[in-house]
Amino acid sequence: MNYQRFFEDAIDQLHAERRYRVFADLERIVGKFPRAIWRANGRAQEITVWCSNDYLGMGQHPDVVAAFQTAAGRMGAGAGGTRNISGTSNPLVELEHELADLHGKEAGLAFTSGFISNEASISTIARLLPNCLILSDELNHASMIEGVRRSGVEKKIFRHNDVAHLESLLQAAGRERAKLIVFESVYSMDGDVAPIKEIADLADKYNAMTYIDEVHAVGMYGGRGGGITEREGLADRIDIIEGTLAKAFGTLGGYITGTRAVIDAVRSYAPGFIFTTALPPAIAAGATAAIRHLKASQAERDAQQRQVAHTKHILSAAGLPVMASTTHIVPILVGDPELCKMATDRLLGVHGIYIQPINYPTVPRGTERLRITPTPYHSDELILELQGALVETWDALGIPYSGAGRPAVTESERIVPLLVPKSGG
Amino acid sequence: MNYQRFFEDAIDQLHAERRYRVFADLERIVGKFPRAIWRANGRAQEITVWCSNDYLGMGQHPDVVAAFQTAAGRMGAGAGGTRNISGTSNPLVELEHELADLHGKEAGLAFTSGFISNEASISTIARLLPNCLILSDELNHASMIEGVRRSGVEKKIFRHNDVAHLESLLQAAGRERAKLIVFESVYSMDGDVAPIKEIADLADKYNAMTYIDEVHAVGMYGGRGGGITEREGLADRIDIIEGTLAKAFGTLGGYITGTRAVIDAVRSYAPGFIFTTALPPAIAAGATAAIRHLKASQAERDAQQRQVAHTKHILSAAGLPVMASTTHIVPILVGDPELCKMATDRLLGVHGIYIQPINYPTVPRGTERLRITPTPYHSDELILELQGALVETWDALGIPYSGAGRPAVTESERIVPLLVPKSGG
Repeated sequence: MNYQRFFEDAIDQLHAERRYRVFADLERIVGKFPRAIWRANGRAQEITVWCSNDYLGMGQHPDVVAAFQTAAGRMGAGAGGTRNISGTSNPLVELEHELADLHGKEAGLAFTSGFISNEASISTIARLLPNCLILSDELNHASMIEGVRRSGVEKKIFRHNDVAHLESLLQAAGRERAKLIVFESVYSMDGDVAPIKEIADLADKYNAMTYIDEVHAVGMYGGRGGGITEREGLADRIDIIEGTLAKAFGTLGGYITGTRAVIDAVRSYAPGFIFTTALPPAIAAGATAAIRHLKASQAERDAQQRQVAHTKHILSAAGLPVMASTTHIVPILVGDPELCKMATDRLLGVHGIYIQPINYPTVPRGTERLRITPTPYHSDELILELQGALVETWDALGIPYSGAGRPAVTESERIVPLLVPKSGG
Repeated sequence: MNYQRFFEDAIDQLHAERRYRVFADLERIVGKFPRAIWRANGRAQEITVWCSNDYLGMGQHPDVVAAFQTAAGRMGAGAGGTRNISGTSNPLVELEHELADLHGKEAGLAFTSGFISNEASISTIARLLPNCLILSDELNHASMIEGVRRSGVEKKIFRHNDVAHLESLLQAAGRERAKLIVFESVYSMDGDVAPIKEIADLADKYNAMTYIDEVHAVGMYGGRGGGITEREGLADRIDIIEGTLAKAFGTLGGYITGTRAVIDAVRSYAPGFIFTTALPPAIAAGATAAIRHLKASQAERDAQQRQVAHTKHILSAAGLPVMASTTHIVPILVGDPELCKMATDRLLGVHGIYIQPINYPTVPRGTERLRITPTPYHSDELILELQGALVETWDALGIPYSGAGRPAVTESERIVPLLVPKSGG
């Protein structure tokens, strides 16, 4: 049997479906965020990143980098063991206190990734409940789906953000059965927000537990960066709030917060938590610095919201098909996988603008898109550059504009003066 | 329904079985490895860590810390995205080249943990093969078991390191069926080594693929730190070599190496790889520095082997029940979970020596043990201190000595002069 053939066939299939992914080799530049050096074919070139999940640029914030470097200098580059076997560092203990405080919960638990935090927590929580039924939003992230699958319990999928559908499933299950509702606050490909209050009301009415993924919201929403649940005053109505340290908090890892009993149970029973090396002290210290900064500072959130609104306005004004989004995520419809890939190749090669194509299976076929994430450091000038590059690309490739085609863009719209956010390091 | 009760009950059960784990709050000290500050009950105290998986102390090596800090200063604290969406940094690309070279393979792929590297790789490889049968050693690590489980394919467990049993299972499956043998080189709780050559011979004879976990061997065995497969000249006979960056390489993350097709397939199909933020550039740069250092330097491996042999000798000479181990892992039999926990509590509280109790389910009941991992930086003086502390603890708690009890220890044995390894930073 020629084993290699099966792997080659699997790769060929991706090429045939135009889904083969090539990773761009990037070197981000502290102090010049969102600029990076892109290496390809032996050449190095400076480009602008427009699809970073370092949503607030905190990965290069001076306080974060300093905390990171100082901890490494004092405690070394790694943790040296699992949490149980010599790997629990003091910065990690502090981080978990900080996270519990961020969401107003009794306790927090950090993982080496958001993926593992969802997979390990959802599966462990559901398995510890007798005959648990999981109710899961149809657009939940892959890591949540893995968690549901690994739990081995019965699941029902409810239509995206559809509280009537969710209620019918809860009703059918009855008040007496253990139920866990798992959903996200901000859905990352469309940028829409869940009806959290309505879901919490249903959880009360039918006596269900609630688990929310706030990875695309923590740091960015709420007065202290506690996410959409904080902004809407609902954190105390959700049992488990899950988040990430790798997006707005600029480092690496994921976490959950909840009651002491839930956190202790996940800590004690989840193989994906127990049998893995702890986060290095430097990562924990950097994350804590980012969280503390964003608890106190509104400047990054305000600047991000302003630049996001400006980006949506400037791109819409040029007739580009900006999809509806109530958050910092700005999707632009392309509607075809090949065009989507060609557009991003052209943006990078011709315009020095890096945006990844978002194709099936990440989004449904026919809704292929660019996903743009303006940060506080994407200046008005960079936004105008982006507009020009997208229009050139749309024209060159014949990608449809929104509605009746591209409207004329007046000069005054192109130079609308907005404050340029302060550079942070 | 009172949901909290189920989580509280789960925790109570661990207490009842004496399996509830408390994580020690440690602050490792660069330049004083293996010393650390231990915080408990509002007190801070300097102690010696005797159970670190930072096996060679590379987490505090000056080259590693410098590479880590420099990358963070230049590129920031995080990756900023998944591998596909802006998270592939230049240091990560370099790291994967370094890993492929380390094992003499075409390609390498880095993950955020060894746990995920096993889970994602085993499950993906097995699923891409038609009607695959997995043959798995009964003592494989939890992460490999999760990978086998998640693959959903049929599995057969062979008795630990039992090639006759493995052969009977291979024979029963037949040459024509796709088969994947998954095993470890060094088993971490007993410190024994797999019969790699015999397994590779069987794989040839019955046409099976082979997947080896070398996490407790990379960096420490072989002329360049390529693990037991390198030491025994067998790397080219194993299809996939998996390793970790979080033990002898002192940082964080796991990896696989293999043919270009296998690596590309895992890269393209494994959800646990695709949907997670990439390792930060600082982690990648630190790991690369550690790998490069250990490719060229034999000093750490020699010093580790010497201190391991000396530890085994000194503890055995005192009649302590040192279990058979052909590697750097030194297990000491206690044989009872409560005694094991009491022993480690006493070692820490009275002697300032930190060793974790290893109880069921990590090891079979009745074989509860201390697991000691001497490094190049555990000096002869520290080894003597350990001997004294263990003897005091064994006597105080009435733990059985090996064979007929504790032999007299001659003074000359207690002061056997060995070279103290150079301090590395």
